[in-house]
Amino acid sequence: MDRVAIIGASMTAFGEREAWIRDLLAEAGRECLDDAGVAPDEVEHLYVSNMASGEFEGQTGVPNALAHDLGAVPAYTQRVDQTSASGGAGIYAAWQSVASGASELTLLVGGEKMTHRTTAEATDVIASLTHPAEYKHGVTLPSFAGLTARRYLHEYDAPRESLAKVAVKNHRNGLDNPHAQFRKEVDVETVMDSPIVADPLRLYDFCPITDGSAALLLCPESVAREMGAPYTVVSGIGGATDTHVVHERADPTVMGAAVESSDRAYAMADREPEDVDVAELHDMFTILEFLQSEAVGFFEQGEGWKAVEEGVTDRDGDLPINTSGGLKSKGHPLGASGVAQAYELHQQVLGDAGPRQVEAEVGLACNVGGFGNCVTTTLVEAP
Amino acid sequence: MDRVAIIGASMTAFGEREAWIRDLLAEAGRECLDDAGVAPDEVEHLYVSNMASGEFEGQTGVPNALAHDLGAVPAYTQRVDQTSASGGAGIYAAWQSVASGASELTLLVGGEKMTHRTTAEATDVIASLTHPAEYKHGVTLPSFAGLTARRYLHEYDAPRESLAKVAVKNHRNGLDNPHAQFRKEVDVETVMDSPIVADPLRLYDFCPITDGSAALLLCPESVAREMGAPYTVVSGIGGATDTHVVHERADPTVMGAAVESSDRAYAMADREPEDVDVAELHDMFTILEFLQSEAVGFFEQGEGWKAVEEGVTDRDGDLPINTSGGLKSKGHPLGASGVAQAYELHQQVLGDAGPRQVEAEVGLACNVGGFGNCVTTTLVEAP
Repeated sequence: MDRVAIIGASMTAFGEREAWIRDLLAEAGRECLDDAGVAPDEVEHLYVSNMASGEFEGQTGVPNALAHDLGAVPAYTQRVDQTSASGGAGIYAAWQSVASGASELTLLVGGEKMTHRTTAEATDVIASLTHPAEYKHGVTLPSFAGLTARRYLHEYDAPRESLAKVAVKNHRNGLDNPHAQFRKEVDVETVMDSPIVADPLRLYDFCPITDGSAALLLCPESVAREMGAPYTVVSGIGGATDTHVVHERADPTVMGAAVESSDRAYAMADREPEDVDVAELHDMFTILEFLQSEAVGFFEQGEGWKAVEEGVTDRDGDLPINTSGGLKSKGHPLGASGVAQAYELHQQVLGDAGPRQVEAEVGLACNVGGFGNCVTTTLVEAP
Repeated sequence: MDRVAIIGASMTAFGEREAWIRDLLAEAGRECLDDAGVAPDEVEHLYVSNMASGEFEGQTGVPNALAHDLGAVPAYTQRVDQTSASGGAGIYAAWQSVASGASELTLLVGGEKMTHRTTAEATDVIASLTHPAEYKHGVTLPSFAGLTARRYLHEYDAPRESLAKVAVKNHRNGLDNPHAQFRKEVDVETVMDSPIVADPLRLYDFCPITDGSAALLLCPESVAREMGAPYTVVSGIGGATDTHVVHERADPTVMGAAVESSDRAYAMADREPEDVDVAELHDMFTILEFLQSEAVGFFEQGEGWKAVEEGVTDRDGDLPINTSGGLKSKGHPLGASGVAQAYELHQQVLGDAGPRQVEAEVGLACNVGGFGNCVTTTLVEAP
């Protein structure tokens, strides 16, 4: 079968942006088309990953607006929402549009505009994705993170500092990412002394509220080959759900949907965890990087923290994780994050990652919705 | 290539429902699985067509909730939004999931819960899909309908009564639909004497605000054949956009996205308009039935109104349109409507439409987002 290739990729600056969702989407969309040297009217399908433009801005119908703004009409367009995993779900939708033969050239643009709302308001929009029973009891995603972190530290004898070291590593990586929201180093003491948000997690264990957008251009590999420019391949992709009620999970330290979705992605690509050279994991909270690094098979259960302590996941380690800076330092505009993960892998595999460059033929991205309620795993590799 | 089959279909009662979006989606989803005799844990992909559960109810993440409620975890799931064409876009997403080989069994559930909000509030949520410049000037979808209707009547010498006859026909059809919101006949005088909403259109030219849900179960035709039960085939499907700013269209009486999307659907199915035996058109406003019946090639431009006057589109006419009662009488729960159109075609083609039954091998559904900003056309036919 003809595989699905990525022939263009882009991302806007992440951070506080004086722009509306439409501006951000158009900015990334245009830059992605330019990156591939493709005219907007060649786009056949246009997918927009976005969780909540209606709730954040009172603006819906953004895919139609974007087709208009880019000059892509009469391309078919649709919005993909899978909460904070909307970006990964968008990659899957775009992949399916090409793999099914429905589209020969599919543009995916993910984005979110959040910072014009207070952090409390934004957290409330995000919390609306949880089970009403959880929400009514005041459980938000950060509080799940705190509870899970405490359990993980207890269960696997991990030091609290190991979590802090995730933040330290990802901030260090973000220093070299011109698109990152935070480009400053932090040390373990700064993380450990920052204000408590959800015990034992502190401010620096959390990703920020962010505006931003990212885009990918996909086509059949045969078409990419004809075009002659460098490209990468989405060799495997899979998605899965876990229980919608978090307390129903047998073991809160096992992210079941990441296990399932990565199994599916590996099977499609005929790959194993050992084949992965670089990974972008959904570090919305530091604890999530441990859970995913174990769930996708990089490390044994309860061993993820050791890899961070030992520098295995550093940029110069055996398996660099979140070379982009991750959600922690790069920022987390919900609908953009999963797309930006693939942007980083595409750059790494192409050898275009500049000062962040590592040696990589195969990259893996794990994009998480809710508290692992739905996860999409994507493998990006050299042709 | 293995085509995509529909092996199960369902819809809930449409109308004012004492239920939340989750209840409605689960009701249709369960009934659809029962219709096909398939267990929930066999579902591989689950798509939810829904425009605005966040805006209407403050509840997001409904696909994850539905996977949980149905017992479909760890199925992959995602929400599809394309405003009032979310249902048609959901069919396209579900079709792509099967046609790409990503899923062997895909459940699509479309739904919306709207009536707990006032009509003004609901209209405001819907209006958020328009271009901000239009919205700021107070232009809503009903006002576009009024302007377009006036132009159409003028341009093609159509009598005002011809629009009323769309409402009369569709209400008559709805009488025999146990799921319809309005099951009462209306006559031309009632429509013509009803309060003006957007001159020349009156109350009975508009579909109501509705709660409801509908579902389809899709798989490769080879699998459907093995299962041995009756099924239909999605033989063609296509989507397209038109300008996001309505006044930029060269001719407001031509629905460009319906022209494009139906061309694409016919091409995929190797069909022509003449092959279609029964159609469900998006009669959110009576004028839209004329525009679509012309755009998809049933009638020449400016001739759609004559077909209604002459009874061609009646249930016992040559080309029955909206045998379900259409959005006009059946109701229009945004995310459900496109799915419910395909439900009606599936029933008609299978010969299961009871008192609404017409002779049909090939059916066409046209689902419209915004004021034709995006349209999806689907062809459902006998194997």
